[in-house]
Formats: sequence, structure tokens, C-alpha cells
Amino acid sequence: MFHINIITPGKNKDGWVDDAVGHYLKLLQKYAAVKIDYLPDVKKPKSLTGTEIIAREEKLITKHLKSDYVIALADRDKSMDSPQFAKYLSEIMRLSNGSVDFVIGGAYGLSAAFLKDCRAVLSLSPMTMSHQLIRPVLLEQLYRGFSILSGTKYHK
Amino acid sequence: MFHINIITPGKNKDGWVDDAVGHYLKLLQKYAAVKIDYLPDVKKPKSLTGTEIIAREEKLITKHLKSDYVIALADRDKSMDSPQFAKYLSEIMRLSNGSVDFVIGGAYGLSAAFLKDCRAVLSLSPMTMSHQLIRPVLLEQLYRGFSILSGTKYHK
Repeated sequence: MFHINIITPGKNKDGWVDDAVGHYLKLLQKYAAVKIDYLPDVKKPKSLTGTEIIAREEKLITKHLKSDYVIALADRDKSMDSPQFAKYLSEIMRLSNGSVDFVIGGAYGLSAAFLKDCRAVLSLSPMTMSHQLIRPVLLEQLYRGFSILSGTKYHK
Repeated sequence: MFHINIITPGKNKDGWVDDAVGHYLKLLQKYAAVKIDYLPDVKKPKSLTGTEIIAREEKLITKHLKSDYVIALADRDKSMDSPQFAKYLSEIMRLSNGSVDFVIGGAYGLSAAFLKDCRAVLSLSPMTMSHQLIRPVLLEQLYRGFSILSGTKYHK
């Protein structure tokens, strides 16, 4: 089974994020082994700038990577539609070694240097989304992608 | 206060959608009077096609419009980023009569004819999103838009 490891700093802040994530993880079970690796929050003394927090988070993220196929999420101008994303998903299944990492940044995002080092940068929307809400949004898009690839009807 | 009326067929299917919607509605209270008008589900006998269900849903939606400024949501190639959306939000506040309707289609979406009759079609992402998940996504984007306009810090 294909392994997807999603790495993201900080726990789900609210119960609804937990529930939404759980809902889509359950749906995804038949397509892939998807795991979310919630990293411990970086302690945020007032002296730390956003850039410094990002640097600490990225150091932690790097330790938790489980594959050499790393895809970072960022809001970019250019996004795919869902059929294109499904095709992209089939490509990474073919090109990776059976396992990929998706990295979602924390509240301050990811650095340009980190993004540059990744295999690819994936944008789910040109709009900036909460790093909490993006979790179920990514999972739903993965589920939609697998559904498209398997020819299953999935409206909603 | 600016009135935003969101019209969408069908209740929130899961508790987490309710909770997510509640979370963002509460945050939005300081910026606008936002109300979600959940329309009753169209009964779906097997004889009804997707197109027929859309037609019935749109008839109901039209009855529930509360303004003459109607914005429909659809997944389109061209999306705005969040600062552009904030600017767009300030424009509709200026151009509308203090009240706008956002329409989210049901599982089968909205018809081309309906979209054509709307003042504008708004795309939150080129990717297709569940008509359930899009509810908190729209609310979060409205909250982000108002936060940008008011100069408030809103990461996450």
C-alpha cells in the first residue's frame, strides 16, 4: 500500500479539526496508508521572530521526513484542478519509492530555502488558508484524487 | 453592519462541519452579520437526474435570496489570492446595498444558466471541494478578508 506521511507543526487546535481530519483519514484507508505526524509546538518566547520560529520548525520537520520524496504545501498563483491533481498523484506513486511526505508549514509558513529543497511545491489554492483548515482540505483532495483514479463516484 | 447571507442546499452532514462553521461564524461576528440559510434537501428518488436535482435546488435558492447582489461559488481556473479577495470584499461592500448573497451549490453544483445570472462567480480554488468542506473554507476566507481590511494580524 502506498504510504503518505503528512508532517505539520502543532496539534489540531480545535475538536472540529480533529474530527474533520479523522473523517477523511477513515475514508482514505481503502486507498493508502495515510499518517499525520503532528510535531510539538515550537516554544514561542516573545524574543523569537517569525523567521526564527520557521527555522526551528523546519529543523524538526526535516528530522521527521520518512521518504526522499518531499512535497511542500504553499499558496501559489498556479494551482491544479482536481483531475490534474489526480494525475499528479498517480505520477508521484509511480516515481516515488512507495512513500511520500507532504509538509504543511505552521502559522508562519515555510521558508523559500525549504521550499526550494523539496521535490515539489503543491498549491491547493492561490488563497492563504489557515494551517489548521488546510489539513482536512488536503486530505479531502487526496481522497478525491484517489477516487478519480479508481473511477469511483464521489460527489459532495 | 454588513449582511452576508450564505445559501446552500442540505444541512451540515457531520458534526465537525457544524463545529467548523460555528467556529468561523463566531469569529466573523465582529465584522459582519453572517447567516447561513440551509435549504431542505431535495428528495432524491432514483428517477431524478443530477440536472433535475440542480433545477429543483436552484428554484429553492432563488426564493431564499435576500439581496440583488448574488455571488455564486464554483471551481474555476482563475482564483484570487487572499489580499485580492479582501479588496473584492471591500468592493462588494461599497457596490451592494449593505447585503449580499453567497450561493454554494449542492452535491451536483450549479447550472451554467444560474451562474450566468449571478452578479459574480467566485472561485476559492481551481480544485473541486466537497460542498460540505467548502462552507468553513468560505467562512475562513471571509474572516481573513475582513482581517486584512481592518489591518488585524491573523496568521494560522
